[in-house]
Amino acid sequence: MKIYLAGPDVFLPDAVEIGRRKAEICTAHGLTGLYPLDNSIDLTVSDASRQIFCGNEAMMDHADAIIANLTPFRGAGADPGTVYELGYMAGRRKFCLAYSNDPATYADRLGRFMDVTTEGGRLVDAQGLTVEDFGLVDNLMMIHALELHGCPLVTPAAQPVDVWHDLAAFETCVRMAAARLIAT
Amino acid sequence: MKIYLAGPDVFLPDAVEIGRRKAEICTAHGLTGLYPLDNSIDLTVSDASRQIFCGNEAMMDHADAIIANLTPFRGAGADPGTVYELGYMAGRRKFCLAYSNDPATYADRLGRFMDVTTEGGRLVDAQGLTVEDFGLVDNLMMIHALELHGCPLVTPAAQPVDVWHDLAAFETCVRMAAARLIAT
Repeated sequence: MKIYLAGPDVFLPDAVEIGRRKAEICTAHGLTGLYPLDNSIDLTVSDASRQIFCGNEAMMDHADAIIANLTPFRGAGADPGTVYELGYMAGRRKFCLAYSNDPATYADRLGRFMDVTTEGGRLVDAQGLTVEDFGLVDNLMMIHALELHGCPLVTPAAQPVDVWHDLAAFETCVRMAAARLIAT
Repeated sequence: MKIYLAGPDVFLPDAVEIGRRKAEICTAHGLTGLYPLDNSIDLTVSDASRQIFCGNEAMMDHADAIIANLTPFRGAGADPGTVYELGYMAGRRKFCLAYSNDPATYADRLGRFMDVTTEGGRLVDAQGLTVEDFGLVDNLMMIHALELHGCPLVTPAAQPVDVWHDLAAFETCVRMAAARLIAT
C-alpha cells in the first residue's frame, strides 16, 4: 500500500528530513510513503509551481491512501494546500487518514486568535461570520470525510511540545493504514 | 449544467440571501446553482454536522461543476472547508472554477498578518516556515488545479469594498461555466 504523505511539513526548514522520517515509519509498518515534491523541483525554472502540482497530483493518483497533517497552520484551521489534497483523494475514492497535533475544538482554538462571541444564538467571529460549533477539531467537511472515506481524525490526548516534529499521531495513522492493508 | 456553489458564504449572517442571489445569477445564464445545506439542517439534532456533510457530498456528486469562493477567510488563505470541496470535485473529475475577491499574491497578503522575512534565500513566516513565493494568489495546489481541471482563478482588478457581497467575480465564473456548456 502506497501512502501519500500530505502536510505543511514541506514548509519546515527541515522538510526533507521530516519526509525521510515519515517514510521510514511507513517502511517499518510494511507500507510505502510517498512524500510531496515541493523540495525536489528546481525552483529557478519559470513553471516550478506547476511542475510541483503535476508531480504531486501524479503521486496522489499513484497512491492507495493519504495521511494528511491537519495540524493548524498560520491560524485556527488546517493548511489549505493539504486540505485540497485530502479532498482530492476522497474524490478519487482513496483511503483517507489524517491527524492533528492540536486536540482543541475549532471554536476554542479560534478564540486564541480573535474575539469569538455569541450573537442571536450563533457563535460569531470578529467579522460577524458564524463559527462552526459542533465540538469538532476543524471544519466539518474534513472531519466527516475522514469518518466516511477512511478513519476518524487522530489527535493526541494533549498537544505535544513540538507540534511540527512529534510524529506519534502520524504513526497511529500508519498503524491504522497497515491494519486496513491486512484486512483487505 | 448543475453547479455546486462552495464558499464561506454559508457563514455570513445573510448566508441564505447570498445563496439565493448566486442561484439567480446561475439561472440567468441557463445554469442551475446548488447551494450547500449548512443553513437548512436542524442544528439541534445530535448528528447535524454529519447530516450537513452527507447532504453536501451528495449535492457535489450530483453536480457537474463547482464554483468555489476562495476569498481569504480568517487569515491569509482560503477557507479550508471550501478548499476540501474544490479538491473533492477535482478528484471526481468535475469542472472546477473559483474566484477570490482579493487579487493580492499570497506572500504579500501574509505580510498583513505577520512578519515575513528572507532567510537563506527562502521567504519565511514568523515561525520560520517557508512562504510559497511563486507570485500566486493562494497555495499552488488550488491555483494549478483550477488551470488543469477547469478555468484559471478569477480575481477582480482591485479588491471590492465588500469582499463578501460583491458577486462580479462570481458572475464571471458563471459566464465561463455557461460558455463551457455551450461548447460541449
